[in-house]
Amino acid sequence: MSFDRLIQRIVKTQNPTVVGLDPKLDYIPEHLKSAAFAQYGETLEGAAAAILAYNKGIIDAIYDVVPAVKPQCAFYERFGWQGMKALAETIAYAREKGMFVITDGKRNDIGSTMQAYAVAHLGEVSVGGNTFVPFGGDALTVNGYLGTDGISPLTEICNTRDAGIFVLVKTSNPSSGELQDRSLEGKPLYAAMGEMCEQWGSSCMGQYGYSAVGAVVGATYPEQLAEMRKAMPHTFLLVPGYGAQGGGARDVVGAFDEKGLGAIVNSSRAVLTAWQKQNRPGEEYAAAARDEAVRMREDITQYLPKISL
Amino acid sequence: MSFDRLIQRIVKTQNPTVVGLDPKLDYIPEHLKSAAFAQYGETLEGAAAAILAYNKGIIDAIYDVVPAVKPQCAFYERFGWQGMKALAETIAYAREKGMFVITDGKRNDIGSTMQAYAVAHLGEVSVGGNTFVPFGGDALTVNGYLGTDGISPLTEICNTRDAGIFVLVKTSNPSSGELQDRSLEGKPLYAAMGEMCEQWGSSCMGQYGYSAVGAVVGATYPEQLAEMRKAMPHTFLLVPGYGAQGGGARDVVGAFDEKGLGAIVNSSRAVLTAWQKQNRPGEEYAAAARDEAVRMREDITQYLPKISL
Repeated sequence: MSFDRLIQRIVKTQNPTVVGLDPKLDYIPEHLKSAAFAQYGETLEGAAAAILAYNKGIIDAIYDVVPAVKPQCAFYERFGWQGMKALAETIAYAREKGMFVITDGKRNDIGSTMQAYAVAHLGEVSVGGNTFVPFGGDALTVNGYLGTDGISPLTEICNTRDAGIFVLVKTSNPSSGELQDRSLEGKPLYAAMGEMCEQWGSSCMGQYGYSAVGAVVGATYPEQLAEMRKAMPHTFLLVPGYGAQGGGARDVVGAFDEKGLGAIVNSSRAVLTAWQKQNRPGEEYAAAARDEAVRMREDITQYLPKISL
Repeated sequence: MSFDRLIQRIVKTQNPTVVGLDPKLDYIPEHLKSAAFAQYGETLEGAAAAILAYNKGIIDAIYDVVPAVKPQCAFYERFGWQGMKALAETIAYAREKGMFVITDGKRNDIGSTMQAYAVAHLGEVSVGGNTFVPFGGDALTVNGYLGTDGISPLTEICNTRDAGIFVLVKTSNPSSGELQDRSLEGKPLYAAMGEMCEQWGSSCMGQYGYSAVGAVVGATYPEQLAEMRKAMPHTFLLVPGYGAQGGGARDVVGAFDEKGLGAIVNSSRAVLTAWQKQNRPGEEYAAAARDEAVRMREDITQYLPKISL
């Protein structure tokens, strides 16, 4: 349960990184767009088909060297329900290949509404006598602004369904400090959110010392990242902000524990657009993504111990 | 622009309330479920078809007396992309009938990701030479934990597309105080969030004194509601928590200004399940919803001045 499967995959691949599947049409090679538009026209269906084909190529190229993918919901919702269909199909495909899927939705609500999100993204839903998996991720990013009422429906599902959540603690963006860095009764607000994560996680501990309640802490704030690693010893960290947003390999060292575990670092744009930087259009786009993913693994693990349980 | 259209509809209907379209299968009369399942089976498509038929009946019954509907995304996502299709169709139907649609998604992210959400829910997206409306609401609920980077993509779209947002300030749930009531540099966190709303809204003011940046403040905390009305004079309030959650008509009086404007009060369950309480199954479910919506209008407006511009 919790993040144990993710941790096992990280150890197996010796790779504490996740590839963000944040598709923009500009990122997709022409041959994939042409094929999709030829079949569905320049429509939302066509865009969704191009995205799915593109994602499958990336997943095929990286699944044996990268433990996880993180599709960002917004880039699928942008193309309507047709885009959401591509999200569900992407998640199913990545899971078929054995990857751990973190659905980046930053969902938040209370009570039965949050339960509906939990079912949508981590669970199953019943219709009459049948049961369906709506989106089917392994973990979901969430926003804790509403307090325990917004989290307990998730920890319940984490305990019954081998799933996890990542709560926003200290985000990677320039304005994250406007609220998160301000002093809440003597400590930064993000630290208070971190304490709540440790508390929420106490009811759903995994076998490797980390609970099912993880936290998002950005690579762009290395001091806070190291501070939060220490302050949240049972909280697995999802670390955005490496690469395009400015965080480097040295900046994320503090996110890890002495076994090289405890965190997973995300890269989206650098992997997705590697073919453009490497000038490898056409089918080569996927190999370019793999090369960048391997480069990222080497970059980050050079400062870490051999990753072990 | 901003909430001007909503305000005009509130004045026209003399009704500062919104009906939350939060469909659960238990709320839907048997004849609608039977028809949908007969056509699509007990599947996600079947559930989505039942929800859409149910919503259309409610909208047909209330559109001339209620200014707005608020579909809650979670209850559609729960049924996968098929549910999201029903969400898009519900929004389009309500807008055809002239209703103002508040998509309750509590979305949050940064930069180009937040822009993708803004396009998804309030804007248009281009695919090749064509343009599409992905979900097409008039307003979106959002979470401001990430600061200005998460809001500015929205205020940009509000200025170009006659749309609005509602930022979570003080939510209606029991645990909302765990974070929101704590002291942030001398004042409650929710008050700091309220100040940010006023600031974000200053770039997108409407003609009636309210900006395109509204706030969510729950009916279950009447003191804070009245306090925030005064502290955020340009911020239109979306008030959940009336009815099933425990807020009464006297509790929401403080949300309104001296013209009976400045707020819209939500009710979901009481309207959606009115047919069960009134024991009016079958086609009568919609008339029961209308009766409850009218009762709610009378209940709330009895303490307000005649609503005027």
